[in-house]
Amino acid sequence: MSSAVEAARTEEARQGGPPLPPLVLAGCGTVGGALLGLIREGRGSDDLVRSILVRDPARERPEPLPDPDGGRVVTRPSELPVEGGRVVVEALGGIRPALGLARRTLAGGGTFITANKSLVAEHGTELEALAAKSGGRLAFEAAVGGGMPVVRLLRDLPDAARVRRIEGILNGTSNYLLDELHAGRSWSEALQSARALGYAEADPSRDVDGRDAADKIRLLAWVAFGVPPAHVRVTRRGILPDPEALVAEARALGGVVRLLARVDPPDGAGICRARVEPCLVPRDSPWADVRGADNRARVSTARAGTLSVSGPGAGGQATALSLLTDLGDEALRRAGGSGGLARPVFPVRTIVAPDPDSSRAEGHPAERWHLSLEGKIPGHPEIEVRPRLERILARADIRLVDVDRDSGRLRTVLETRHAPRVDLVGERLRALALEPRLLRLAER
Amino acid sequence: MSSAVEAARTEEARQGGPPLPPLVLAGCGTVGGALLGLIREGRGSDDLVRSILVRDPARERPEPLPDPDGGRVVTRPSELPVEGGRVVVEALGGIRPALGLARRTLAGGGTFITANKSLVAEHGTELEALAAKSGGRLAFEAAVGGGMPVVRLLRDLPDAARVRRIEGILNGTSNYLLDELHAGRSWSEALQSARALGYAEADPSRDVDGRDAADKIRLLAWVAFGVPPAHVRVTRRGILPDPEALVAEARALGGVVRLLARVDPPDGAGICRARVEPCLVPRDSPWADVRGADNRARVSTARAGTLSVSGPGAGGQATALSLLTDLGDEALRRAGGSGGLARPVFPVRTIVAPDPDSSRAEGHPAERWHLSLEGKIPGHPEIEVRPRLERILARADIRLVDVDRDSGRLRTVLETRHAPRVDLVGERLRALALEPRLLRLAER
Repeated sequence: MSSAVEAARTEEARQGGPPLPPLVLAGCGTVGGALLGLIREGRGSDDLVRSILVRDPARERPEPLPDPDGGRVVTRPSELPVEGGRVVVEALGGIRPALGLARRTLAGGGTFITANKSLVAEHGTELEALAAKSGGRLAFEAAVGGGMPVVRLLRDLPDAARVRRIEGILNGTSNYLLDELHAGRSWSEALQSARALGYAEADPSRDVDGRDAADKIRLLAWVAFGVPPAHVRVTRRGILPDPEALVAEARALGGVVRLLARVDPPDGAGICRARVEPCLVPRDSPWADVRGADNRARVSTARAGTLSVSGPGAGGQATALSLLTDLGDEALRRAGGSGGLARPVFPVRTIVAPDPDSSRAEGHPAERWHLSLEGKIPGHPEIEVRPRLERILARADIRLVDVDRDSGRLRTVLETRHAPRVDLVGERLRALALEPRLLRLAER
Repeated sequence: MSSAVEAARTEEARQGGPPLPPLVLAGCGTVGGALLGLIREGRGSDDLVRSILVRDPARERPEPLPDPDGGRVVTRPSELPVEGGRVVVEALGGIRPALGLARRTLAGGGTFITANKSLVAEHGTELEALAAKSGGRLAFEAAVGGGMPVVRLLRDLPDAARVRRIEGILNGTSNYLLDELHAGRSWSEALQSARALGYAEADPSRDVDGRDAADKIRLLAWVAFGVPPAHVRVTRRGILPDPEALVAEARALGGVVRLLARVDPPDGAGICRARVEPCLVPRDSPWADVRGADNRARVSTARAGTLSVSGPGAGGQATALSLLTDLGDEALRRAGGSGGLARPVFPVRTIVAPDPDSSRAEGHPAERWHLSLEGKIPGHPEIEVRPRLERILARADIRLVDVDRDSGRLRTVLETRHAPRVDLVGERLRALALEPRLLRLAER
């Protein structure tokens, strides 16, 4: 290598890539504040951030707001200048006022970079259509998996890879809580430490009941299969009502509880089904190895083998770095001139054709569930549950692989290729005032 | 969502993204043939492939060459039309004639997409400089990890994430062979089945002596730290000369052997050091969980936690799909018009500044090695090895944590923060005609 080439290379490297574009920041909490800190650190100034929307400018923050008197800090969404092709980074969460900001940004041909999974899961197709019409861009790497780059992994995978299934631990909060329970903490101790570490909001309902993971698996289905996220049918069971009992159950069975989300390609009728449910995983499995607030996703393909990715699923800095990755794309797009589409907003995919080998339930092997429940009907100590359970299972055409009675409880193992039938069994048992504990047995 | 929006969305989805550009294919072996097959399957024709370079057009292939009489198949590199801004996909391997094709393509402002790690490891900076001058592009996702998207992961990670270490199982062939040995096969049986499955060439030297993994870790250092790959100093020990003994050693210690590569950021003097060496990993570690020809990479960062990615590290189809991903980028770049840089060729990074917390050896915890060797000097049954070993270790300032004598062999555990000192000890022992078996104890 000549020294001239070397010098040129070094010179180029010193430039550090195209400069970040000026931006407008909506929200300056954990994630927004971390982004502000990263920008200040990287550039020695926050002058790139032209305007910031916050609810309460007086609140004390680890990362202080820029010059409180300089007019860059606004408190009303309508005051935030998002029109006219701006780059807007949204870290507010929730639907309002984020949706209005997204519409205004994208209608004006701007770029809307967001960490907001509910917004994209509920309104992604509308926003994407707005962007397509105006030449704007919607980017949401930070909306799934915090710092774990699974949106990119799916976006960059060619259709020819043929994704057969996406599975993941997509909610860091519930994973952290389950880990704490496995370490012997009580539920209330676990919640307290999750709040102290910033992993859980005051109200972590969306995390523990699986709604957060459901939003995320919808987004992944959109990116992988082109199915509008609002059209993905998600069956959802969180770790409630009794996470301690689930963990005790798993411990008795020699495994670990993980809240797994999964989605398969659309079936013959074009319906895309997803599940979020607590699963029993082996102690030495990669799922059990996901600790604390980390996330992991596994993408099984017909052609490219099985791809896995893991990383921090929560935390302000990891999520802010994902926003920064999307901002880096925007910088490249601008460096490329003429408003070219630098990267696809999401991969504009042919909606995956029904694939008889993979998308029907028959394409996947039969699965097993651990179901445990009280041995007698509550309030009716004379009525044994077992015959009722057997009738319910027979009607649902579910195989009872194993049954065991242990200190008053029935512990059973069910087998079927049709997960929805198990959900139905759960409902029927709950209708009998029974509280079944259901753990799907996950493969490694 | 309005049905008009929905209809527009569906229409857009049906388009399946921008069309692939016409291309020239160099090489039609396992990888090139798989790519040809994927293109045929996706488009119903191979008319996109304007010209193919092969050594022997008469050879029988699983994927037949296009119309042997149509003039698209050439056998001399000079006949391949790579000038004038073409998209060239190279799947030949080796330096010649790939280097000449790359130079001609990039000097002409074309795009050179390659799966050739040695080419990029040796000549990457020269090719990149050519591309920067002419407006061409060099893309090499397929050169590391087959279908495991680690180049992209590193490329998309913002500098602010601060990569502290990259580790990986980067050679599928040696991993497959080690797995077979652990399953009880002999070395020669393992080699035979690796060849039968297409995981090993007739001569797998570059795989088993660690040169292939060394090339790949150089490329990752380039992408992550901006250090020219040819400048990365790699200390390399493969699984030779006696892989069966290594596996027996690991089994006796209750673990599994994996050939791990790793690289740290440049140190205070700007020197970037990498290692490729057989390591002892716990049976339940994610490294042990990498089976057959799969690959895995782990990226530790100061800011974005630890990111891992795994997938098929070898195999024609997985590698061809990576080439297709790079082709998809090219399609997007062209759709964006005006020759804009759709994605960075590699992240044009500031060469990472010396980071006192991480890049000095002191920034990482002390590590341990299992060293086992004969108890007496070969040919001198009267001379005990132990006192000599202790002197050598003392001179190298390496702690001897444990020593044990077992059926004539010395089994020791060494500890140091300075890996190169262990390499030196290995050399000194070999100078005494001893054949030390060294396994670094890897963290989970």
